[in-house]
Amino acid sequence: MNIIGELFGYIAGICTAICFLPQTLQTIRSKDVRGLSLTSYIIYCTGLISWILYGLYIHSVQMLIFNSIGLFFGAMILYMIIRAKK
Amino acid sequence: MNIIGELFGYIAGICTAICFLPQTLQTIRSKDVRGLSLTSYIIYCTGLISWILYGLYIHSVQMLIFNSIGLFFGAMILYMIIRAKK
Repeated sequence: MNIIGELFGYIAGICTAICFLPQTLQTIRSKDVRGLSLTSYIIYCTGLISWILYGLYIHSVQMLIFNSIGLFFGAMILYMIIRAKK
Repeated sequence: MNIIGELFGYIAGICTAICFLPQTLQTIRSKDVRGLSLTSYIIYCTGLISWILYGLYIHSVQMLIFNSIGLFFGAMILYMIIRAKK
C-alpha cells in the first residue's frame, strides 16, 4: 500500500479517536442530554469494543489505541445520558 | 484469523454502519439539536470519509459498505445541526 493510503488510515484513526471529544466537553458543560440518543451510544460503544477485540485478533496496535480513546469519550457520553435519565 | 476474530470484525462493522440510525430518527422527530456537537459530527464524518478512502486503497468491500452507511446517518445529523444553526 502506498503512502497516501496509509495517510487516509491514520486520518481515519485519529478522527475515530477524537470525534466525540467535543461532544463530551459540550455535554459536561451544558448537562443537556435530551437531544442525545441512548440507543445510538450503546451501539457506538459496542462497536468500539468490537473493534478493540478485532484489533487484538489482527494484532493491530493502532486499532487498539485509536478505538480505546474513542471508547473513552463514547463511554463518558453514555454514562452522562444514563445518569440524567435516572 | 479464526472465526471469532472475523465475527468481531462483522459486529464492529455493523455497529459502525447503524450506530447513528437511532440518533438520526430521534433528531428528525424532536428537531432538538441543541445538545449535539457540530464539531464532533464534522470530525465523525471526516473520519468515515477517510475510512471509505482507506477501504478503496486496501480493496475492502465490507469497509466501503459499512462506512458508507454510517456516513449517510452522520451526514444527515450534520445537515440537521447546520440547518438549525442558520
